[in-house]
Amino acid sequence: MTSEISVDEMRAAHKRTAPFIHNTPIMTSEKIDEKVGAHVLFKCEHLQKTGSFKARGALNSVILAKEQNAKGVIAHSSGNHGQALAWSALKIGLPCTIVVPRNAPVSKIDGMKEYGANITLCEPTMSSRESVCADLAEKLDSFYVDPHNCVSMINGHASVVFEVLGQVGNEIDSIFLSVGGGGFAASVAFLIGNIRPDVEGEYRIYLVEPEQKQLSKLLEEGVQCDVETLNTIADGVRVAQVGSLCEPILKKYCTKTVVSVKEEEIKEALKLIWTRMKQRIEPTAALAFAGVLYHKPSHIKRPLVILCGGNVDTNYVIN
Amino acid sequence: MTSEISVDEMRAAHKRTAPFIHNTPIMTSEKIDEKVGAHVLFKCEHLQKTGSFKARGALNSVILAKEQNAKGVIAHSSGNHGQALAWSALKIGLPCTIVVPRNAPVSKIDGMKEYGANITLCEPTMSSRESVCADLAEKLDSFYVDPHNCVSMINGHASVVFEVLGQVGNEIDSIFLSVGGGGFAASVAFLIGNIRPDVEGEYRIYLVEPEQKQLSKLLEEGVQCDVETLNTIADGVRVAQVGSLCEPILKKYCTKTVVSVKEEEIKEALKLIWTRMKQRIEPTAALAFAGVLYHKPSHIKRPLVILCGGNVDTNYVIN
Repeated sequence: MTSEISVDEMRAAHKRTAPFIHNTPIMTSEKIDEKVGAHVLFKCEHLQKTGSFKARGALNSVILAKEQNAKGVIAHSSGNHGQALAWSALKIGLPCTIVVPRNAPVSKIDGMKEYGANITLCEPTMSSRESVCADLAEKLDSFYVDPHNCVSMINGHASVVFEVLGQVGNEIDSIFLSVGGGGFAASVAFLIGNIRPDVEGEYRIYLVEPEQKQLSKLLEEGVQCDVETLNTIADGVRVAQVGSLCEPILKKYCTKTVVSVKEEEIKEALKLIWTRMKQRIEPTAALAFAGVLYHKPSHIKRPLVILCGGNVDTNYVIN
Repeated sequence: MTSEISVDEMRAAHKRTAPFIHNTPIMTSEKIDEKVGAHVLFKCEHLQKTGSFKARGALNSVILAKEQNAKGVIAHSSGNHGQALAWSALKIGLPCTIVVPRNAPVSKIDGMKEYGANITLCEPTMSSRESVCADLAEKLDSFYVDPHNCVSMINGHASVVFEVLGQVGNEIDSIFLSVGGGGFAASVAFLIGNIRPDVEGEYRIYLVEPEQKQLSKLLEEGVQCDVETLNTIADGVRVAQVGSLCEPILKKYCTKTVVSVKEEEIKEALKLIWTRMKQRIEPTAALAFAGVLYHKPSHIKRPLVILCGGNVDTNYVIN
């Protein structure tokens, strides 16, 4: 679809999607500030349409697909990406197919169905997901929308940055976000890196990862993570590898700003946000806050944490 | 302390407490509007200091106690009232004692301790709570602050009404709230009834109760509920009787607007708010929404639901 990742395309995507997307609020908590010893701002993407930031890139992708006369859109997903794409397709009026691994939670599948998506089940392996999806995409003449490694997704996600700069641009000194496949991280890092010339100084983007991911090794030494899927409660970032489009961007802007956290730290961060802020975020959103809570560099005084999503089953408990 | 429930006292309480209290946001959800078939506004008192509206009345009570040279404040509580009073006392600089039944959840006791309250345990019966509290109040020369049947609490809670009228006064046609001991309900009903002359027409206050409570029988026929404690998941409104100060107010303004809901309806309402709005409210807050979701009179088009609190343990699940 769109051919390049650029500030102009990001601006255009923001304009294109803004009428349908929430400018999500920013929350704060005195109690959390006390615990962290800094003024923490939370960008509430769990209050975004479909319950995650994914709606931003997905909507941009679907609008562009329609402009290019696609018959539909398709993706494989067990979670937020599928719901975001289904919602976007429903809004814009394009058929949507999601290839879902058989072991996906029923609640997520129900979410996709509620937005009118056609569901095709496949085996719970990446190779089955990809091959079923590729076959169907050809058969249905549908645009394939990759959750991470996709120019229109990356350009679309950047609307969160325009919002944040408008809301609290002069109040923050850093942005902390959870990193998985790298699409969202690349989007934020690229835009901040290009429109805030002080990025190397004040405005740093911190990538918070489950410790098994070892993203620093990739960015500093070119060494890939040796597993395909991480063993973490942060189910939105279990994919270990970052996309090939994302890697050079993250290398350029975030080589020294990877923060690794332990599972126990994610749980404690999640508990604090549930009990203090009463926000029912998902564990993957707590990951970013765990980076601030346990590993914030001492010179950072006003971090913004992006709470990426809130899609968690009603019977989920923190053990 | 304050001698009467009045609009002037409510205005004074609002002015007195506003510097310390959140003007809590109002949230909406397209998905919930679709389900209800009306535009529902939610006043987020779970985002209030201490996680419930109780902070409003408690703070007013503590400020007045201090003005009257009390040596401290005291109450019995197993939950939100104790936390609200402890927080208020800490803010204003008065010692606070809470008499807590032995079976109270540890998390709630911890909350009170965190705000610096002295905790005295008692047997889990109302008579033990009351007698231990009365003895201590005399010994410590402390003001006793009843959670429901207390003029300064009732006057203090009314600040929520001034906020709501300022935020969405012209957008709503009714207010739905959860009713337990009746202090909050009486506060809202009294103030709306006195400053909105259209109260009998457009602006109605609906009292939502667990069905076992049978508040209509009391208001219409003078028949008290035949149990002391209700068997409901809405733990904040388990007290069956309404306070003697509250009863005549509720009789005057709400005799025809009691809404009874079933336990299953509370659970479904709670699930919707957790999953759609991502707000981790407590079951008692969902009670008010259950009234709208299942029993809204058809002429009501723009109800405001007061979400009373969000203090729920991290391991709580909806069964």
